[in-house]
Amino acid sequence: MESREEKEKLLRQRGLTIWFTGLSGSGKSTVAIALERELSSRGFLSRILDGDNIRTGINSDLGFSEQDRRENIRRIAEVCKLFTDTGIITVAAFISPSEQLRNMAREIVGAERFLEVYLSTPLEECERRDVKGLYAKARAGKIPEFTGISAPFDVPQAPDLELDTTGLGVDRCVRKVMECIVPKISLRGSDEYK
Amino acid sequence: MESREEKEKLLRQRGLTIWFTGLSGSGKSTVAIALERELSSRGFLSRILDGDNIRTGINSDLGFSEQDRRENIRRIAEVCKLFTDTGIITVAAFISPSEQLRNMAREIVGAERFLEVYLSTPLEECERRDVKGLYAKARAGKIPEFTGISAPFDVPQAPDLELDTTGLGVDRCVRKVMECIVPKISLRGSDEYK
Repeated sequence: MESREEKEKLLRQRGLTIWFTGLSGSGKSTVAIALERELSSRGFLSRILDGDNIRTGINSDLGFSEQDRRENIRRIAEVCKLFTDTGIITVAAFISPSEQLRNMAREIVGAERFLEVYLSTPLEECERRDVKGLYAKARAGKIPEFTGISAPFDVPQAPDLELDTTGLGVDRCVRKVMECIVPKISLRGSDEYK
Repeated sequence: MESREEKEKLLRQRGLTIWFTGLSGSGKSTVAIALERELSSRGFLSRILDGDNIRTGINSDLGFSEQDRRENIRRIAEVCKLFTDTGIITVAAFISPSEQLRNMAREIVGAERFLEVYLSTPLEECERRDVKGLYAKARAGKIPEFTGISAPFDVPQAPDLELDTTGLGVDRCVRKVMECIVPKISLRGSDEYK
């Protein structure tokens, strides 16, 4: 079977998992989608994994018990590994609230091909936005163990990048991520990135 | 999030799942690996999924009960769907012994992006090769429910392609698969295929 390096040569890019972690409403999916668009416009192939395509698909058999949440992240990380080993820039957007879960993901993918991006938008701002109405429900006690309200979120100890979307627009977030990843995903002449 | 069509445009190819089914030793992995090489040499990005990267990774929690075998194929098909939706030519090589399992896989991926290739190498030939020594173990009663020996294999009723590797070398098998798939994966000018 072909190695990752052979796939990367064909794609003219290097595989990488970009793992977005942060509270619900912190901007993970918004930044992920804008990042995908930017990568695409520069000719990089990427793949977003998020609740929409994972919870309804491969993890449709899982609930929200602690064991199932762990299994959810384990499988996602295994899928990230398969994509990254195919040379693809894999963008995972999941709350992944504990250091233990994020470390497991890093170990599965392989630390050298894993980048942790912490969306540090504060709870108050996430709750103010409440795009999906989940915080209101959680405050009303209708969602048990909701991260930030009734379940903890461990602040990442050493993220590769931290972004607070309160004061930073999507475009600037994407630019910061790109600055961070282009040296890692690049297999082309530097003039091609302009 | 980007559509499959946008990914396909970037890759200049169309996503497709090629599902190899057949007995242990029928040539699934051998043909898959040679097919990957041929696709690569023509500039097509593909990804093989087989026992080696699935059973040790995403499906490492599964055993061989009937329920687990079904769950094994369900998850594999979901991974195939994710890759195919990224525009990648996804090559799955699994015994997948029943029509029911293969139909489930086809439904998950989507029939229009799914191609079933039946490796029809007869049991006698597979057992004669016995590359992994599994048939000897199965005959000795050391492997319960071994497909072809103590568990059934449903012959596919309408495979898109049938290959008996007894009389057909790997190169000819690959050529036949390529003839079948190039019209489906092609997004380039026909002169590029020569």
